[in-house]
Amino acid sequence: MNETPRGQRLHLAIFGRRNAGKSSLINALTGQQVAIVADVPGTTTDPVAKAMELLPLGPVMLIDTAGLDDTGELGRLRVEKSLDVLQKADLVLLVVDPGQGFGACEQDVLAHVRARDLPVIAVINKADLYPEGAAGEWPELSSLPRIPVSARTGYGIDRLKRLIVGSAPRDWTLPTIAGDLLAPGDTVVLVVPIDKAAPKGRLILPQQQVIRDVLEHDAVAVVVKERELRYVLNRLGHPPKLVVTDASVYQRAVADTPPEVLLTSFSILFARYKGDLETLVAGAAAVGGLRPGDRILIAEACTHHPIADDIGRVKIPRWLRQAAGGELHFDVMSGGGPLPSNLGDYRLVVHCGACMLNRREMLSRIMQAQEAGVPIVNYGVLIAQVQGVLERALSPFPAVLERLGAAMQTFDDADVVPRRVPFGRGE
Amino acid sequence: MNETPRGQRLHLAIFGRRNAGKSSLINALTGQQVAIVADVPGTTTDPVAKAMELLPLGPVMLIDTAGLDDTGELGRLRVEKSLDVLQKADLVLLVVDPGQGFGACEQDVLAHVRARDLPVIAVINKADLYPEGAAGEWPELSSLPRIPVSARTGYGIDRLKRLIVGSAPRDWTLPTIAGDLLAPGDTVVLVVPIDKAAPKGRLILPQQQVIRDVLEHDAVAVVVKERELRYVLNRLGHPPKLVVTDASVYQRAVADTPPEVLLTSFSILFARYKGDLETLVAGAAAVGGLRPGDRILIAEACTHHPIADDIGRVKIPRWLRQAAGGELHFDVMSGGGPLPSNLGDYRLVVHCGACMLNRREMLSRIMQAQEAGVPIVNYGVLIAQVQGVLERALSPFPAVLERLGAAMQTFDDADVVPRRVPFGRGE
Repeated sequence: MNETPRGQRLHLAIFGRRNAGKSSLINALTGQQVAIVADVPGTTTDPVAKAMELLPLGPVMLIDTAGLDDTGELGRLRVEKSLDVLQKADLVLLVVDPGQGFGACEQDVLAHVRARDLPVIAVINKADLYPEGAAGEWPELSSLPRIPVSARTGYGIDRLKRLIVGSAPRDWTLPTIAGDLLAPGDTVVLVVPIDKAAPKGRLILPQQQVIRDVLEHDAVAVVVKERELRYVLNRLGHPPKLVVTDASVYQRAVADTPPEVLLTSFSILFARYKGDLETLVAGAAAVGGLRPGDRILIAEACTHHPIADDIGRVKIPRWLRQAAGGELHFDVMSGGGPLPSNLGDYRLVVHCGACMLNRREMLSRIMQAQEAGVPIVNYGVLIAQVQGVLERALSPFPAVLERLGAAMQTFDDADVVPRRVPFGRGE
Repeated sequence: MNETPRGQRLHLAIFGRRNAGKSSLINALTGQQVAIVADVPGTTTDPVAKAMELLPLGPVMLIDTAGLDDTGELGRLRVEKSLDVLQKADLVLLVVDPGQGFGACEQDVLAHVRARDLPVIAVINKADLYPEGAAGEWPELSSLPRIPVSARTGYGIDRLKRLIVGSAPRDWTLPTIAGDLLAPGDTVVLVVPIDKAAPKGRLILPQQQVIRDVLEHDAVAVVVKERELRYVLNRLGHPPKLVVTDASVYQRAVADTPPEVLLTSFSILFARYKGDLETLVAGAAAVGGLRPGDRILIAEACTHHPIADDIGRVKIPRWLRQAAGGELHFDVMSGGGPLPSNLGDYRLVVHCGACMLNRREMLSRIMQAQEAGVPIVNYGVLIAQVQGVLERALSPFPAVLERLGAAMQTFDDADVVPRRVPFGRGE
C-alpha cells in the first residue's frame, strides 16, 4: 500500500469483461450526484480516469478499463494497457457477469492484483437477472470480499460503497480540512483556549492539522485565545475569511465575530474531514423527533477518557432527555469495528469526535447507520446544536445548511433543548 | 517528584548547622550575578526564600533555613519549621562543616529528605581549611553525591552548580520560551516553511511550544510560510513585536522583516530555553580562532537522523574547515550522558539542537564544557553565524549581544566563513 496518498483522492480501478456492466456500475455508483471534474485525455483504447464526487465518500478517481475479453492482437494490447492502471489504483473492483461466469481473464487480473497486494472487491452484477448468481459457484472468488449488485436497479450499491470505504487505505482522507474555503492570502483566525484540558506546552492535533492545512493553501493562521479574539479582529486591519473556534468557547467566539465572517469549529471541520457532515447534521435534526422510551446508542471509539466520558455519559443523555421530554434508554459501546448488528433497534446513534478513528472507519460507521435507516450525529455537531450555534457553525457550508434547512426548522420549533448548557471541551 | 513544576523555578532548600556556612554558600553560588527579585515575607525564625538568577541555571528559589543545631525550645520549633520547606523543595543542599562533623541533626534531615524521595547533595564546605575534610570519614554520606567546596574562595562552586543541574527534576525548564519578550496583546509572527522535512499534516514540537507560549502570555501568534511573510507584515496594520523564523529560511525572513522589528529563530529561542544562550554564542565566536589541525567534537543527542546527519557530518565540518583555513580533526559522539572525559583535548564542541535532551541534560553538558575551558556552540547558533544573521537573530537579547560584541567582532574580521552556504533544516 502506498504511504503517500495521491492527493487523498481514492483511485478505484474497474475491471471486467466487455458486457459485465462496468459503465452502468459507474453510473449507479455516482447516480444523479455525478460531477465530472476532469477527463484524463486518452484514446479509446486507453483506460479512462474520471475525477468524480461519489457521495458520501467525497472525491474519487474512477478508472474504467477495456473489456478483459477483448480479442485479437489489438485487444491483447488493450488489456495489457488496462493492467498498467494497477500502478495507480488504491482498490480494484472486479465486475463479474454471472451469465458469462468466472474464467481465465478474471483469474489473470486477480493474479496481477495480488502481485501488487492491492485490495479487490468482486462485484457480482446483474443480481436482478441472476438472483442466485452470487451464491458462490466460483471457488476462485471465495477468498475475496464479494457482493451481489444490480447496476440497473441500484440493488446493493450502498453496501458496495461501504465495502469500498472499508477497503480504502488507512491514511485515506479528504484532500483538505479547510483549504477549499480559502484563497491564497486569506486570513484564518483560530480560537484556542488554554485551559486545564489543553496539553501542557503543546497544541492538540486538530489545531496543528488546521494550521498546517491553512499554510499549505498559502493562507495565514492567526492563533489567539478566546479572550483576545475581539481585540485581534479589531486590530487585524482586514476581516479574516474564517474563524475556527474550539467548541468550548462557541458563545464567546460567536459574540465576538462579525456576522459577515464565516465561523465554524474544529469539531465541525473534522466531522466533515473524518466523515460526512451532511449525514451528521441530519442526525442532529432528528433529535427533535425523539420520544420518551426511545433507545439511543452512544458510540465511543476509545475507552473512557474522563472528559469525553462526561460528555457522552452525563451531558448528552441529559440534553437528549430534555429534547425527548422524558426518559430514554441509553446503550454505550466503546472501541473500533462496526456498529452493533442490532442497529435498527435505535432511534439515534450519537458518536464521539472519532479522534482515534481514521476516515475509513468513521465513514464506514456513518454508512452503516444510513443503511440501517438510523440517524447518526456526533458530539461536535450535537454540541453546536445544543448551544444554538449550529447554523452559525455551518456558515462555511451553505450546501449542507440549505439541504437541511427544513429538518433543522422542525427541531428549532420543538424548542426543547436548552441553549446555554454549561459544558466541557467537546473534542 | 512533583509532575507540575512550580513556575519552572528550581527550588533549592539549604540545610546545615549554624556555622556550616549556608549564607556564604548562597553568596558564592550567586556571586556578583545575584538579582534578588522578591523576598517571601517571614519572621527571622522562618526559612527565607529568595528568588534569584543563578547563572547559567536561570531563575531559582534559594530557601535558607535555621541552623539545624539551634538549641532550646525555640530552636526546636525553628528546626521543625525548616523541615516544612521540604514540601516545596526540588533539591536539598546539606552543608556540612568538617570542623563540626556529621551528627544526629544531619541524620535527622536526611531521614526527612529520604522520606520525601527528594534528591540531596552533601556540600562539604571549608575545603580551604580542611583539605582532607571530604575524604569520606562519615559513612552516612557515602551513598550521597557529595562535593568539597570553599564558599569563601569559590573552590568547587562551578562543579556544585553542575551537580545541582544534574539533580534537577526531568521536566525543569525556564518559565517561558519567548514570553519574557512580550506584553499582552503583542503580535508574534512565526515563519513556518512547509517543505519535505516538515511532518505531514502536523507542526513540529518547537513550533507548537512557541505558539502555546505566546498564547499563555496573552499575545497573538500569526503563522505564515516564508512566501507570505512580506505580504502579511504589510497587511497586519501594525508591526509585530517579534518575528520567529525557521533557520532554513533566515535570509528570506531577514530580508522581509523591517529592521526595527525584533527577529530570531526557533533554534535560538530553544538554545536559550534548553541551555545557556550566552555560552553558546561565545562558542560561535570561538570559531574564528580555529587553526588547522585543531580537534573538534561533534555531539549529537540521538543516533543519526538523515538531515541532522547532513548538518553535523557534512556541512558543519565544511564550514569549520573553511573558517580554520585548513584540515581539522573531527570526532563524533552520539547519545545522552556526559561529554567524554578527554574534553580538554578539543578546541570546540559543536552540539546538536538537543531536541531529544531536556534542559537539565543540555545545561549539564554546557557547564561541563565550561569547566573544561572548551568553547561550546550548537547547530542553531552556528548556522545563524555562518549565514551572517546571528547578530540579527540576537536582536531580542541585547544583553547577550552586548557582552559578546567584542568576541563576535574578532570572528567577523576573520571573514572566512561563507555567508550564504545553501543548507537544510537546522532543527
